Parts: sequence; C-alpha cells; structure tokens
Amino acid sequence: MDKLEHIGIAVKSIEKSNALFAQLLGQEQYKIEEVASEGVRTSFFNVSGIKIELLESTRADSPIAKFIEKKGEGVHHLAFAVNNIEQSIEEYSQKGFSPIHSEPKEGADNKLICFLHPKDTNGVLIELCQEKKPNT
Amino acid sequence: MDKLEHIGIAVKSIEKSNALFAQLLGQEQYKIEEVASEGVRTSFFNVSGIKIELLESTRADSPIAKFIEKKGEGVHHLAFAVNNIEQSIEEYSQKGFSPIHSEPKEGADNKLICFLHPKDTNGVLIELCQEKKPNT
Repeated sequence: MDKLEHIGIAVKSIEKSNALFAQLLGQEQYKIEEVASEGVRTSFFNVSGIKIELLESTRADSPIAKFIEKKGEGVHHLAFAVNNIEQSIEEYSQKGFSPIHSEPKEGADNKLICFLHPKDTNGVLIELCQEKKPNT
Repeated sequence: MDKLEHIGIAVKSIEKSNALFAQLLGQEQYKIEEVASEGVRTSFFNVSGIKIELLESTRADSPIAKFIEKKGEGVHHLAFAVNNIEQSIEEYSQKGFSPIHSEPKEGADNKLICFLHPKDTNGVLIELCQEKKPNT
C-alpha cells in the first residue's frame, strides 16, 4: 500500500452532507459523480491531498443503502492506493485477507477497486484502489 | 482544518491488531503509548504521512470500551490538525457543531484534543488536534 487515497463516508443525503462538510472542512466539494454499477452518487473534498468521499445510495439494494440500514451514517471505508491492483488482490489473499471480489471493479474517480472483507481487518472495510491506466 | 492528522481505530487487543495492521500496511507500529486519563493504550503506524492510531481500552468504563460494546471494532474517529485548538472549538461551536468538551484535553502523541459530537457530523466522530507547544 502506497498511501491513504480517500476516506469513504456513507450519507443519507449528499445534498445536505455536502453543505455540512463544506462547513466542517471550510471548502466546497470539487466534484459529484455517479457510479451506476454500484448504486451510488459520490462527492469529493480534498483536505491537503487526502480525499473525503461522500456516498449516497441511489437504489434501495445498494451496498451503501444496506450499510446505512445496519449501522447508520458514518465512515464506510478507508481506501489505499496500490500500483497494481490484480497483484495486490493476490498478495492480500495469500496473507489471509479476504478480497470481496477476485477481480477489480470500476469505482468512482477513474479507479479500479477491490474491498477486503472487514471480518479480517478489525471491522474496518479496506478498499484497494488503482488509478485506471489509459489502456485499461 | 489544516490536514487529516490521523485515523483512530478501536480494537479489542492492541497486540493482535498490531500484528494484523503490520500485515495489512506492510510496516510495524512505530510507537505504543498509554493515555491513562482516557483509559486507552494506543499504537501508531504512519502511511505516507497519515497516522493510523489503534486504540485499546484499559478499563471497562472507557470511551473505547463503550464504543466497542455498542458498535464493535472499527473506525472510531478522524482527527484533523488545527493551529489553535481553543479558537477552533469556539469557531465550530459558532458554526453549530457540538464540541464534546469546552476545553481541550490531553491526548496521545503530544496533542491537545477535542471531539465534535457525531450527531452533527453524519455519525463521524471528528477530533480536532493541536500539537502541544513547549509552554503549554
């Protein structure tokens, strides 16, 4: 893992939470992006190079809707940048962690992503993310 | 807020979690520190300038013990560095947030700290922290 890339926060209303985080962080979100395949609308803030990603569900059966139903709003995941996500999935599997998917998925913000199951990571959902390269 | 200073993670056993996070992050913790006043033992990792702080309760009635009892292990707080914590407490109060204490408290890692109540911040416990100056 190279660096913390972003912190994902599950919210009920991205509109209300954008206003709230603007107050909290002293800045506006710099983009809003929908990831239809994941059933989320996201917005991004940048605090000295670390992104805060707000995640609002766009359908009742999305992972974010289920998370909020179970746990309420709050920190959903910590995302760490990796150089080669396929290799990282393999390496973390070998170390005994449990990647939720065997292949990376499309995420927001031009990323390929894979989550490690929080049962192995003290209840913290970890996302591995790699910037998509032009030829992928 | 200047920057994300650290992410606090509540764990049941700091010994086991140090081993787990060493596997996850590819590095050992760089220090372990007890904050008796808060009833916690902490350990720190540094991922490209962002600290990961593991927090283990040292007594049954500590805030971390209560958090784990209620929510299980997981992300406990996000800490942001501020230059003048008294001023920040005042400013966030005026903005409608709810500092849990009116005066900063002693935290781990040579910090003065104050939490903002998560009821106003989408369920995310926010810590404001300021490096202690030699004369404080």
